[in-house]
Amino acid sequence: MSNPTAAMIVIGDEILSGRTRDSNMHHLAGRLTEAGIDLKEVRVVGDERGTIIAAVQAMAKVYDYVFTSGGIGPTHDDITADCIAAAFDAHIDVRDDARAILAAHYAKTGSELNSARLRMARIPDGAELIENPVSAAPGFRLENVHVMAGVPSVFEAMVASVLPTLTGGAPLISKTMRIERGEGDIAGPLGEIAKAFPLLSIGSYPFQKDGKYGAHVVIRGNNEEEIDAALGRLEVAFA
Amino acid sequence: MSNPTAAMIVIGDEILSGRTRDSNMHHLAGRLTEAGIDLKEVRVVGDERGTIIAAVQAMAKVYDYVFTSGGIGPTHDDITADCIAAAFDAHIDVRDDARAILAAHYAKTGSELNSARLRMARIPDGAELIENPVSAAPGFRLENVHVMAGVPSVFEAMVASVLPTLTGGAPLISKTMRIERGEGDIAGPLGEIAKAFPLLSIGSYPFQKDGKYGAHVVIRGNNEEEIDAALGRLEVAFA
Repeated sequence: MSNPTAAMIVIGDEILSGRTRDSNMHHLAGRLTEAGIDLKEVRVVGDERGTIIAAVQAMAKVYDYVFTSGGIGPTHDDITADCIAAAFDAHIDVRDDARAILAAHYAKTGSELNSARLRMARIPDGAELIENPVSAAPGFRLENVHVMAGVPSVFEAMVASVLPTLTGGAPLISKTMRIERGEGDIAGPLGEIAKAFPLLSIGSYPFQKDGKYGAHVVIRGNNEEEIDAALGRLEVAFA
Repeated sequence: MSNPTAAMIVIGDEILSGRTRDSNMHHLAGRLTEAGIDLKEVRVVGDERGTIIAAVQAMAKVYDYVFTSGGIGPTHDDITADCIAAAFDAHIDVRDDARAILAAHYAKTGSELNSARLRMARIPDGAELIENPVSAAPGFRLENVHVMAGVPSVFEAMVASVLPTLTGGAPLISKTMRIERGEGDIAGPLGEIAKAFPLLSIGSYPFQKDGKYGAHVVIRGNNEEEIDAALGRLEVAFA
């Protein structure tokens, strides 16, 4: 049994121009790994309708879960909700449940629920809302696509709301051995061990720090006994 | 005249599992923007031959430049060079020019140029080497695809080697106005201004810090006069 698969679409010109450094990908990657869901691909795209729709359609077909971040605010460049609706050929308009959430929030904060803010209540027919405990404006799930905010604090809160609704797999177990030798010296025996354990993923990540160099060899898999066996071979090879 | 376009492929299971936080995308995005080259899309993929080849083929066709990071070390999970060769149906083997670079480097450092390290001299026929002033093992360019290391210090050095070889466009000019109002209050007038300046890209990026909230409105384009005109309208609207 393999784990459920996932993909992410990071939406925003500001990431591609280098203005903003995305942190949502790294956050989601860690949470999914803990949940036993394999993140297989991430695409970063700009605020362009055609590109967003094409990415959603391509990835929703191939992966069990798709997650998007960005483009669901009140300004003219926030086009994600409309693109998701178009990708699934769903009708979209201001929806009463989302409008009620915004109305309650802005009544409390004393801001006006104007037409721009009402854009954040545009939710496709058939979608389920995702709670936003930080700033009220909800995300949503349509089919297998989870649409979330780009602001990291909001994105992370939405991910926390969504995670319990997902079907996870066997959580990934990961053990690391630090070897203070050049990767070129590690590579030969490591390749042999990787061949002997085809169900494990064995990666080598070089480091160079405080005048020392070497690699962290990370062994990942769902079966702890097998991981320990591979680790044992590693310890014999590099003792 | 629009600017040349670019795409990036970040390669590595360690990014998708959340073990490593990628920094190369943000670095490349900033350098390309300075050079007047528009980064249009980034894909993050795992160490899987089929996925890497498909991404390279899809993106090399559509964009002027493609950049990859990761997977060119000496270990069994470093498969990028072979995938690039396969994507272009090019022959690949240890090449004399790359071998000579490695031989000189390891003679100096006293390490053995063993078969694992020799893997780093596997370069497709027809490719041009990209200098690696940090740890010698070169990257390469094949057609419009630039293949670079994943280790950030090496990646950044290789980007510096490559940039002067690229044909840039008009450098992007970007001006920012900080507005201490909710995005929902900004959105209406901002949408009007964006409509009036269709050649400019106008983005709104909300912040919340030290009890203050609002948005940075960023106006980007190649024509400074036009940017200043839009900025003027913005100042009138939110004075």
